[in-house]
Amino acid sequence: MSSQPTLDVVGIGNAIVDVIAKTDEAFLKTHGLAKAAMTLIDAERAESLYGVMGAGIEASGGSAANSMAGLASLGGRAGFIGKVRDDQLGGIFAHDIRATGVAFQTSAATSGLPTARCLIFVTDDAQRTMQTFLGASTDLGPSDVDEAMIASAAVTYLEGYLWDKPQAKEAFLRAAAAAHKAGRKVSLTLSDAFCVDRHRADFKRLVKDHVDILFANEAEILSLYETSNFDEAVARVRADCDVAALTRSEKGAVIVAADKTHTVAAEPIAKLVDTTGAGDLYAAGFLYGYTRGLPLPVAGRIGAIAAAEIIGHYGARPEVKLADLVTAKLGAAV
Amino acid sequence: MSSQPTLDVVGIGNAIVDVIAKTDEAFLKTHGLAKAAMTLIDAERAESLYGVMGAGIEASGGSAANSMAGLASLGGRAGFIGKVRDDQLGGIFAHDIRATGVAFQTSAATSGLPTARCLIFVTDDAQRTMQTFLGASTDLGPSDVDEAMIASAAVTYLEGYLWDKPQAKEAFLRAAAAAHKAGRKVSLTLSDAFCVDRHRADFKRLVKDHVDILFANEAEILSLYETSNFDEAVARVRADCDVAALTRSEKGAVIVAADKTHTVAAEPIAKLVDTTGAGDLYAAGFLYGYTRGLPLPVAGRIGAIAAAEIIGHYGARPEVKLADLVTAKLGAAV
Repeated sequence: MSSQPTLDVVGIGNAIVDVIAKTDEAFLKTHGLAKAAMTLIDAERAESLYGVMGAGIEASGGSAANSMAGLASLGGRAGFIGKVRDDQLGGIFAHDIRATGVAFQTSAATSGLPTARCLIFVTDDAQRTMQTFLGASTDLGPSDVDEAMIASAAVTYLEGYLWDKPQAKEAFLRAAAAAHKAGRKVSLTLSDAFCVDRHRADFKRLVKDHVDILFANEAEILSLYETSNFDEAVARVRADCDVAALTRSEKGAVIVAADKTHTVAAEPIAKLVDTTGAGDLYAAGFLYGYTRGLPLPVAGRIGAIAAAEIIGHYGARPEVKLADLVTAKLGAAV
Repeated sequence: MSSQPTLDVVGIGNAIVDVIAKTDEAFLKTHGLAKAAMTLIDAERAESLYGVMGAGIEASGGSAANSMAGLASLGGRAGFIGKVRDDQLGGIFAHDIRATGVAFQTSAATSGLPTARCLIFVTDDAQRTMQTFLGASTDLGPSDVDEAMIASAAVTYLEGYLWDKPQAKEAFLRAAAAAHKAGRKVSLTLSDAFCVDRHRADFKRLVKDHVDILFANEAEILSLYETSNFDEAVARVRADCDVAALTRSEKGAVIVAADKTHTVAAEPIAKLVDTTGAGDLYAAGFLYGYTRGLPLPVAGRIGAIAAAEIIGHYGARPEVKLADLVTAKLGAAV
């Protein structure tokens, strides 16, 4: 039997600094950018695209990293494993995640590609179009997987984006094995419908054989099971995982667990500015509730509150202490 | 007689990337930070202070650089002279100012200190406390002063902060001389009350002998003339400069010119978030109007509109196209 976890969740993912600028639909068309998706780009393309991008702001990002920052902001105990280079952007990433209260000890690469950056183009409809240069994140490998940290966490949370690089894939599998060996749970976010498309067969096997708690939005789960019928996807995922939290933007989320299905409404928002990080923060809130043993609909509600905060401003890290926000909405009991 | 200017304003100042984080009053006290002021810090202090700073966002800054970005956003023709290092933050600064439409050709330093950064601590009252590591900005010297660019601009705009370093001081004087030799105007912002305190004698001489258009807030102009009487400061500055725009936060601004004094109300704001850049954007708006030959109270109104936009969000560069904002408020005639 495993000892009490000292961390709630350890996240593993790409360590990225976001470069965020507003743009218009015409720009996306002119430069052939797949709207609302995440596209991988190389160094050369990153440079040429940055050259035509408008003035921006920089903020630490990365899907699982955003989730861990959110979890810490909620008052949870979080760790993160991901790779930066020892450059200025890497320093910013490491500072921000630690300043949020997340344990982060992965060594920075001292040679090779620079720290990853994601060029995020936000259109007037608040949709984000992401063009990611993975840079040093590509160097994340199995030797970076801190098995002691993983064994100490109730849940190990993995981003599907890791599957885009062979070394990170190995790290992913090693982390999942270490978590289960320690009697912990493994959680995965499918990340992006195009990412599911690239790796469908692998993801189906992963979800069935390794994943206890799955996060996906509607497009991703439909893509995974190659169906256009949401109810069918729900039935399929029910057979594959202990818990699945399926987010449907303003329609709220459907939480699937054993023979129960819970529908949780989206949180009302004052102003929709930038949807970057909505899924990441939903996962943060859900896992905060889950690791505290709260009823799943309450965990879902916390996810919805965290997601609503993040889409009200630019950037995918909370601007307020989420713990205060949740206490204000749900009371001090949570 | 000089030819028609091809630029409205060329700004000369420190080329800085801002690192912005929310904080509380207790933090300022604990770390001995002078609230609402700009304090120069060395590399070691910058590192230790960043170590205890909360998670932040990065955005291009620098006082005169913010003004030029604002001028370009208004539809004006702007240039900027300032020094970055050839590092990641320098790349961000150069990208952002060019992406805004400002001509920027100063060569980046290839050795020496890294690009300047300003740690900005924003308290709940929206006041900003700035701790600046000047880094590569210190290398700005007379040889960086592009006299052809200065001769091509109707106004050369200088930030008082330049006076903190000997080389930049020389650059300042060379630029002012070049502007006047070309029959152009010289404008100065006093930047910060502590900065005025450090350099009062020099600033008094500068204002009297070299400056045509002066920008100052109330604290700065009172400090310059060592008086607590605003009316006395108005009388003194009237004798020293052609035009002085004296900003008084929510009390609006007083524009002093020859025998006229105009009072322009502050622009109403929906939400006060972060006052960083308020003075910089006021100067941008005022100079936009001035260089178009608009009546001074209209120039002041444009300054107030630009300042109101910047204090409604984090960061000192406009989030919207200011030209559209001004057209919406004042009509297409401007």
